[in-house]
Amino acid sequence: MNGLFITFEGPDASGKTTQIRLLAERLVSSGIKPVITREPGGTPVGEKIREILLDKENKDITPVTEMLLYAASRAQHVARVIKPALEAGLIVISDRFYDSSEAYQGFGRGLGGMVRTVNEPAVDGIKPDVTFLLMAAPADVSDRRSAANLDRMDAENISFRERVAAGFETIAARDSERILMIDGTRSIESIASEIAEYVGRLLGRTL
Amino acid sequence: MNGLFITFEGPDASGKTTQIRLLAERLVSSGIKPVITREPGGTPVGEKIREILLDKENKDITPVTEMLLYAASRAQHVARVIKPALEAGLIVISDRFYDSSEAYQGFGRGLGGMVRTVNEPAVDGIKPDVTFLLMAAPADVSDRRSAANLDRMDAENISFRERVAAGFETIAARDSERILMIDGTRSIESIASEIAEYVGRLLGRTL
Repeated sequence: MNGLFITFEGPDASGKTTQIRLLAERLVSSGIKPVITREPGGTPVGEKIREILLDKENKDITPVTEMLLYAASRAQHVARVIKPALEAGLIVISDRFYDSSEAYQGFGRGLGGMVRTVNEPAVDGIKPDVTFLLMAAPADVSDRRSAANLDRMDAENISFRERVAAGFETIAARDSERILMIDGTRSIESIASEIAEYVGRLLGRTL
Repeated sequence: MNGLFITFEGPDASGKTTQIRLLAERLVSSGIKPVITREPGGTPVGEKIREILLDKENKDITPVTEMLLYAASRAQHVARVIKPALEAGLIVISDRFYDSSEAYQGFGRGLGGMVRTVNEPAVDGIKPDVTFLLMAAPADVSDRRSAANLDRMDAENISFRERVAAGFETIAARDSERILMIDGTRSIESIASEIAEYVGRLLGRTL
């Protein structure tokens, strides 16, 4: 694998999408065209799975069904997008990857180690080179959310979001070499600069 | 669990649907209303997953994605339909269940033991009381198929269908207490009588 696999993780509305856009802009300015993708989704089949997962009508989805659908979307994503792009030497930036399954289904829904077992064939040995984990205090997330439309995931309660946030912190502590935890309440510009500097170092050039 | 869980398995177009209808008619005539269901599907979420699986547009679905989508549909089916019905003492008849995943994804696609691991949380300890495995020679299946519309699964080649058929036979040999293998080339009426007699014995009455 000659490419570079960068993932953004964190609770909903923690600023991932904005930071991905800003990093992509800096890369493009430097003459590098990254592959921008997301989970669930990232492939035609994955986007259909995403629709099922985020549709409020499907609020009776069980935690195990949810876990398996995320894993199915990921299997397609790894095989059809991430692996081929990395093999072609490209930079892949994904809005969420496996860490989200551990945080949301493993810690949030309490499914624990089952999440890893089920995801093993989906992930197929692919691991991010670096993960930017954008954290926001649960209260802040809740505030920022109120303005937006609520989808099924958003309808979950505060204590679920707290378990997810604590899960992300546990995952980051366990894998501190790969995961850079960033305080998402800092200014957008300051976060963007830190991320660009980090990626620049990996690429051996200034972004 | 006070109910009775009956599954029908076998290659495509082996006569499962017809036999399920005939068994259901006999049960209803005896004053028993069974729950008739199917996989993939059986729940609103499962039917949406079924659409993804059978849509010819999605022919680039990888074997692992496919396995995980079937398992996701099953998790929802077990939790929302099969378990509640069995707990209520009902007879549940399902057109396909876990054995199909082993035959199609395990043997047919060559995923092997991974299928069992991924399905464990989906099946959640539920096992059919009896499984009627309707077998047809691959050539016959192919003949019967030609008239019907082709969906994604149908577009698979002969050698895949042969691996699936051999897989079903292996599964039946391994679990001969539960699985009754039936020659699907026999007359519809003779098969229906054998199945009714078998289920009648389990229920302690004549159907």
